[in-house]
Amino acid sequence: MPPDDALVVGVDFGTLSARAVVVRVRDGAELGTAVADYRHGVVDHELPGSGRRLPPDWALQVPADYIESMSTAVKEALTGLDPAKVIGIATDFTACTMVPTTEQGIPLCAFPEFADEPHAYVKLWKHHAAQPQADRINELGRIRGEKWLPRYGGLISSEWEFAKALQILEEAPHVYDAMRHFVELADWIVWQLTGNYVRNACTAGYKGIYQDGEYPSQDFLRELNPGFERFVADKLEHPLGQLGDKAGQLSAQAAGWTGLPEGIAVAVGNVDAHVTAPAARAVEPGQMVAIMGTSTCHVMNGNHLAEVPGMCGVVDGGIVPGLWGYEAGQSGVGDIFAWFVRTSVPPEYHAAAEAKGVSVHEYLTELAAAQGIGEHGLVALDWHSGNRSVLVDHELSGVVVGQTLATKPEDTYRALLEATAFGTRVIIDTFIDAGVPVRELIAAGGLIKNEFLMQMYADVVNLPLSVIGSAQGPALGSAIHAAVAAGAYPDIRAAAEAMGSVRKDAYLPIEANVEAYQEIFEEYRALHDYFGQGNGVMHRMRERRRVQKG
Amino acid sequence: MPPDDALVVGVDFGTLSARAVVVRVRDGAELGTAVADYRHGVVDHELPGSGRRLPPDWALQVPADYIESMSTAVKEALTGLDPAKVIGIATDFTACTMVPTTEQGIPLCAFPEFADEPHAYVKLWKHHAAQPQADRINELGRIRGEKWLPRYGGLISSEWEFAKALQILEEAPHVYDAMRHFVELADWIVWQLTGNYVRNACTAGYKGIYQDGEYPSQDFLRELNPGFERFVADKLEHPLGQLGDKAGQLSAQAAGWTGLPEGIAVAVGNVDAHVTAPAARAVEPGQMVAIMGTSTCHVMNGNHLAEVPGMCGVVDGGIVPGLWGYEAGQSGVGDIFAWFVRTSVPPEYHAAAEAKGVSVHEYLTELAAAQGIGEHGLVALDWHSGNRSVLVDHELSGVVVGQTLATKPEDTYRALLEATAFGTRVIIDTFIDAGVPVRELIAAGGLIKNEFLMQMYADVVNLPLSVIGSAQGPALGSAIHAAVAAGAYPDIRAAAEAMGSVRKDAYLPIEANVEAYQEIFEEYRALHDYFGQGNGVMHRMRERRRVQKG
Repeated sequence: MPPDDALVVGVDFGTLSARAVVVRVRDGAELGTAVADYRHGVVDHELPGSGRRLPPDWALQVPADYIESMSTAVKEALTGLDPAKVIGIATDFTACTMVPTTEQGIPLCAFPEFADEPHAYVKLWKHHAAQPQADRINELGRIRGEKWLPRYGGLISSEWEFAKALQILEEAPHVYDAMRHFVELADWIVWQLTGNYVRNACTAGYKGIYQDGEYPSQDFLRELNPGFERFVADKLEHPLGQLGDKAGQLSAQAAGWTGLPEGIAVAVGNVDAHVTAPAARAVEPGQMVAIMGTSTCHVMNGNHLAEVPGMCGVVDGGIVPGLWGYEAGQSGVGDIFAWFVRTSVPPEYHAAAEAKGVSVHEYLTELAAAQGIGEHGLVALDWHSGNRSVLVDHELSGVVVGQTLATKPEDTYRALLEATAFGTRVIIDTFIDAGVPVRELIAAGGLIKNEFLMQMYADVVNLPLSVIGSAQGPALGSAIHAAVAAGAYPDIRAAAEAMGSVRKDAYLPIEANVEAYQEIFEEYRALHDYFGQGNGVMHRMRERRRVQKG
Repeated sequence: MPPDDALVVGVDFGTLSARAVVVRVRDGAELGTAVADYRHGVVDHELPGSGRRLPPDWALQVPADYIESMSTAVKEALTGLDPAKVIGIATDFTACTMVPTTEQGIPLCAFPEFADEPHAYVKLWKHHAAQPQADRINELGRIRGEKWLPRYGGLISSEWEFAKALQILEEAPHVYDAMRHFVELADWIVWQLTGNYVRNACTAGYKGIYQDGEYPSQDFLRELNPGFERFVADKLEHPLGQLGDKAGQLSAQAAGWTGLPEGIAVAVGNVDAHVTAPAARAVEPGQMVAIMGTSTCHVMNGNHLAEVPGMCGVVDGGIVPGLWGYEAGQSGVGDIFAWFVRTSVPPEYHAAAEAKGVSVHEYLTELAAAQGIGEHGLVALDWHSGNRSVLVDHELSGVVVGQTLATKPEDTYRALLEATAFGTRVIIDTFIDAGVPVRELIAAGGLIKNEFLMQMYADVVNLPLSVIGSAQGPALGSAIHAAVAAGAYPDIRAAAEAMGSVRKDAYLPIEANVEAYQEIFEEYRALHDYFGQGNGVMHRMRERRRVQKG
């Protein structure tokens, strides 16, 4: 066992910044934290330097930004602490976020001849310009009956590794030819810290279609595009590491970047959502973690493999080694509430919130919470940003049913809150129906501060709802992985037990509420099926919108 | 023929005020106008004087207010004109608005012993507390297969004469016993002007269930309530007058009230919506007049009798003698737009409208008008105040389908405008399907000032759209009736031709728009049928709301 005052560092690479946390190995106490924004943020308009314009749906990043922000954040988080006590570091990243590199892991965009080539940069998770490629992957996969397709609920995303790579091949063949490795940033950052390239089991499975020990076949890839036949063999395949394993030791160069001791353990890379499970002590089968922010990501372990319709994916060891890691998601949650507050709340509500010294969200929540269940008379569908699970249809859109001349803003706001809870309920029901039990819901992310929303979720899903104890779940989760990689704990479960933090059963279902919400959920479910699978009006209206907007 | 400078007066009794207009008989020129509010407005909270509280859904008025406001308005409208040139006066009223009176036509509420008795007052059209009575009338009518029921689209309203009378009998039998006549205010005001009680053919038909020369049978009334058996015989039945006929001469007393010459012609009473048709020169079969304000009332003449599903009613001579007058309605139109602006538009839109010096309605309309058809990607149902025609279901409510995180206030506003146009289209389609041709739409009412909305209606219904020329359609329509009653014209058609005013074909359908709206209308129609007749979610949610609100 390490000394009683041993420390670990976790670094969470988000969409706009890197966040570092310094944690005591013994008990998970968070002793220091810092955030540093990326110099170039999200590059979605024009390339820095050349000023080259980007098409719609593109989202790039500059890899040097990650090193710079990590350096700043880790050093600042260590303020007042002794770096010599740090025994390990681990990182988590947004995913699927990819970069084409040389044999040595140098991003192609770092070379002058590629500086004005968009395809040579990091493609951020929310780069959605590879949708045509994703559509072809899905169509061909369905036609050929590829057995990996059901592992992803029936649909490969345009955000993932194969769609992004195929887009490079087809739009910038010279970049594709120059690329030796197509690397997840979750692994690239570890490569920079250690000098070792290890593909982590989480992204390889969820984003890289790695199932049962193999990737999609050369045959499949050739049928997609003859030039794509050897993509796996030549540019993707690489030894894998399990989560919590040590990927290598901190290099002298990386020690200089971070101020940490050279040679300490560096863990295998990981994804922000998945690494949150150990931070919330939720790594047992049946414990579903919902990371609730602008969108919601659901991750949960299961003892066995099941094909759950509409899930994002199931991966062997995708969350912790030895269990099947399940992932599902709701593509819009907090961003729907934000949209409503931004577009649909009249001046007097803004003024009243200001007079009370609360945000408009808090003001609306307070008014909504004073109502009885169903008092607003509304049912909404939470598809303003499409539906990920379980319909896997990003062309769906929102619905509000039941407004009258007496409907007030807090009524519709509450109906939207409820709709997102019903959306989580549909996901849980689908897991249960597929034979994957869900016994507890653990909430993490920015929305946990809304107590009314939390109680509503407990009542709607009719499960005990626990809440993560840390405000920085992913970074704490990474620190837990660092402790395991450093050998301080035998495995992630043990480390999570000691270092994770949760308010267990913070919200228990209230029986009368459960019954009242059940009735409204049945209305939601009927509308869900009607608009999701019965009446294609949303697809047709979206197509009209597209045609009109040109 | 009367002198070239002969005048007539029309008085329109609205919900809150009386409006008088002085019109030249020769050409309909409006030479004077004035409005006077009722002293007590709508009494829906407590009785004046006694302070007695009223239950929900009650709406009363004080009959003396009508005399007072009429006197003020007519005298003011005559300012600068020679009253001696006035040859006739006519009035129109909200309907169904009823008062219990003595043999002499004195309202019971004028007697001290009834001053604190709510049932002794005028029951305004929007008094909705007789719904239980209306439900029983409808149920029994259906069971007995009463042949008058289809004349009202299958449903008698709680606003109408029989429901209101039955409520008095059952809740205040002493008032019922003291009542000799149950009088439409449209007829009561004429009675006050002339001393003659004449029931006008319009309200007798639309509100009094007078069809084919008879009222509902004693047998039917007895089955409703044994005490109601002789309601028609003892309290309702009275000689009828046709529209445009002379009801009598202006009495000396009424000449004093108004400053008009004693003995001039007073026309048979009429209803505000129906009297608008001649004001818009729209009295031929196939000319549908839409009076568009907070709600929309559709009136149209037809050559023959047809039973149109979901219409409000069809009455022989209900608009002009000799033709079948059809009426339909949309229960929410302008009030839906007002609700949206009041509850769902953010501060920066209010500020931008103010900076431009326009109303929020005008600002949203301008933004919405800049869009292509379907660009917002939305379909809405215009049922925020229920649906009158053709579903006849006041428990329905609004729907918006298709909102995304990119949806802006003007998008939803435009979708609501379109929904009301689609609602009118459904009504027109239903008339045509029932064999009643509709050849032209003539718009009247407050919404005609929105040119974008007018063009939209023309495109959606694919008919030439004309617009009434007068800003005070009902009062002008009454003046036309006054001219006919005074013998200046042989009939309403001739008077309407000379005195009415219309911008013929002000908006013609634009072919490309017609096609684009047709597609969205088909989406509307599918949602209309699903929520109107397929999925009863709106009824169930409204019931939950009622239960919760207690």
